[in-house]
Amino acid sequence: MTDQTNDDFVLLEDETLRDGLQLESRIFPLEEKLDLFRQLAGAGLARIQVGSFVNPKRVPQMADSEELIRALRHEAENGPLLSALILNDKGLERALSCGIGHVSMSVSVSNSHSLKNAGKPAAEALSGMAGLIRQATEAGLSVRAGLQCTFGCVYEGAIAEAAVLNAADVFASAGAGEINLADTTGMANPLDIERLVRKVRKHLPALQISLHLHDNRGLGLANMFAGYQAGVRIFDVCTGGLGGCPFVRGAAGNVPTEDAAQMFSSLGVKTGIDLRKICATVGSLEGLLGRKLPGRMKTVLAAEK
Amino acid sequence: MTDQTNDDFVLLEDETLRDGLQLESRIFPLEEKLDLFRQLAGAGLARIQVGSFVNPKRVPQMADSEELIRALRHEAENGPLLSALILNDKGLERALSCGIGHVSMSVSVSNSHSLKNAGKPAAEALSGMAGLIRQATEAGLSVRAGLQCTFGCVYEGAIAEAAVLNAADVFASAGAGEINLADTTGMANPLDIERLVRKVRKHLPALQISLHLHDNRGLGLANMFAGYQAGVRIFDVCTGGLGGCPFVRGAAGNVPTEDAAQMFSSLGVKTGIDLRKICATVGSLEGLLGRKLPGRMKTVLAAEK
Repeated sequence: MTDQTNDDFVLLEDETLRDGLQLESRIFPLEEKLDLFRQLAGAGLARIQVGSFVNPKRVPQMADSEELIRALRHEAENGPLLSALILNDKGLERALSCGIGHVSMSVSVSNSHSLKNAGKPAAEALSGMAGLIRQATEAGLSVRAGLQCTFGCVYEGAIAEAAVLNAADVFASAGAGEINLADTTGMANPLDIERLVRKVRKHLPALQISLHLHDNRGLGLANMFAGYQAGVRIFDVCTGGLGGCPFVRGAAGNVPTEDAAQMFSSLGVKTGIDLRKICATVGSLEGLLGRKLPGRMKTVLAAEK
Repeated sequence: MTDQTNDDFVLLEDETLRDGLQLESRIFPLEEKLDLFRQLAGAGLARIQVGSFVNPKRVPQMADSEELIRALRHEAENGPLLSALILNDKGLERALSCGIGHVSMSVSVSNSHSLKNAGKPAAEALSGMAGLIRQATEAGLSVRAGLQCTFGCVYEGAIAEAAVLNAADVFASAGAGEINLADTTGMANPLDIERLVRKVRKHLPALQISLHLHDNRGLGLANMFAGYQAGVRIFDVCTGGLGGCPFVRGAAGNVPTEDAAQMFSSLGVKTGIDLRKICATVGSLEGLLGRKLPGRMKTVLAAEK
C-alpha cells in the first residue's frame, strides 16, 4: 500500500483501457489492447485498470475483459497491478473466474445521479456495494471503493460532506482498503479537494484515499496538486486525457497520464513513468483513434526536439 | 490599485487583442478589433491590453495600435483601463502620441532568451528598460514592468532568484507600480510560483505583482491558483486561451479568460466577468479564426444548456 505520508512518490493508476476506451465507438480488438497494455507497463505504470465486468451490450468495448485479463496474468506476473471495474454480483463472479486479484467498484453519492446512472437510489446502491465489497474481500480480492460525484453533481449541486463520510465508513467497515473520491462531472476546485480530503483523512486515518479527477473545466492538474498537498498519493489518469463521464455531456476528459507525470516530476515527486515512452503511447493511441488527444506533453516534447 | 490583501477580488487583464492576435497570420481589421474590445468590455473585463508599439514590419497585426487606441479612448472613458506594450523610446513616443495612460514593458531575465528575443544581453535590456520606465512615469504614465522567463528558460534552465529580485529592485526604483512575472515558456509548477511570489512580496511589499502564465504543459490554472494563494491579485488571460510565446515553439497558449473566471467564481472570488458573455466572445473569435480554441468553459456551458 502506498504510504500517504510519503512525499516522494505518487502512484498513477492508468485507466486508458477501461475509462478511456469505454466511450469510443471504435472497438479495440484484443491484440491492440494487449499492445497498449505492454506500452503502458513499459512506460512504468504500476497499476493499470484494464477492463470492466459490466453488461457487454451496454459497454461492448469491455466485452473481452476476461480474455484480456487471462492473457495479461501470464505476462504481467511481475508487472503492474491489474485492476478491473465491477458493479454487481455477476461482475464479481466474472472477475473471480479470470483470477484478477484487485477490483474497483463505484457508486454515486448523489441520489439523482445514482437514479440516472445506476437506476437505483444512492442509499440502496451504497448498501448493495457494501455487500459486494464483503463478498469480494472474503473471496480474497483487494477492493477499491469509488464514490462518484463526491465534489458536486450537475443535477444536485453541492454534496453534503456527511454523506461522503458516511459512505467512507460503510466502505471501510465492509473491508475496502482504498476509497476513490471521484469528481465525476468536473466541478471541484482546489479548495474543495483540500477540504474534503483532509476531512476524510481525519475521519478514517487508516483508509487509503485516491482521486479520480475530470478535466472538463481545465482544473484537473490544479485539483491533483491540491490533493497531493492534502496527502493523497494515488491518482487516476488516462493516456492523452482520453475518457471521462459518459452520463453527463461535456464532462469528458480524464487527467492525461503524461501531463500528471510531468507535473509530479517537476515537483520532484517520482511516479516511475518514463515521459518519452508514455508520450509515444499517446502517439499510438492517437493513430488508432485518428484524432489528437487533449494531453499537452506530447506536443511539448516534440517541440523541444 | 488592486489590494494584494483582498481575498475577494482578482483583476484579470485580457490580452487577446495584443498577445492573442500577434501570433495569428490573419490580419484583424480595426473594426473587428473594436468589436472584440466592446465584447470584452461588455463581459466585464476591467483591464484590456489592446496593442503594442513595436516594429509593424515584425508584428503587422499591431500596426494599427495608435488608431485603435484613439478610437477606444473616446468610447472607453468609463470603461476598462487600456494598456499597450512598448519596448523602446520609439514605442513610448507612439504611446504618448495617442494619449494612452498606462503602458506595459518587458525584458527577459534569461540572458540567452534576451539575446535571441531582444538581440541584447539581459543586463543591457534591464538598464535600458529602467530608463524607459523613468521617461514614461515622468510623462505621467503608469507603468507595469514585465520580466520574461522568471520561472525558468528552455535555453538556460533554472533562473536565479537573485536575478529576479534585482530586476524587481530596478523596476521599483525606476517608478514601475507593478511587476509582471512571466512564465514565458510554461515551465513553472505551483511550488515555484508560491516560493518566488512570496520572496518578491517580502522583498518589496509595496510593489504590486501580476502573473503572466502559459498553459503549454496544462498547468496554467494550477499555477494561477498557487499565485492567488501566495497573494497575487492580478493575472493575465486571453479569451479562448489564444496566444503564447512566439519565440519558443510549443509554448503557445495563455490561460483562457473564461476558464480563469470560472475557477475564481467557483472559489468565491469575484472577477466582474460574465461567463456567458465571455464565452460568446470565444465563439466570435473562433468564428473569425475558423478554428476551435483550447479554453474549456464554452464547451461546458453549451453542454449544460
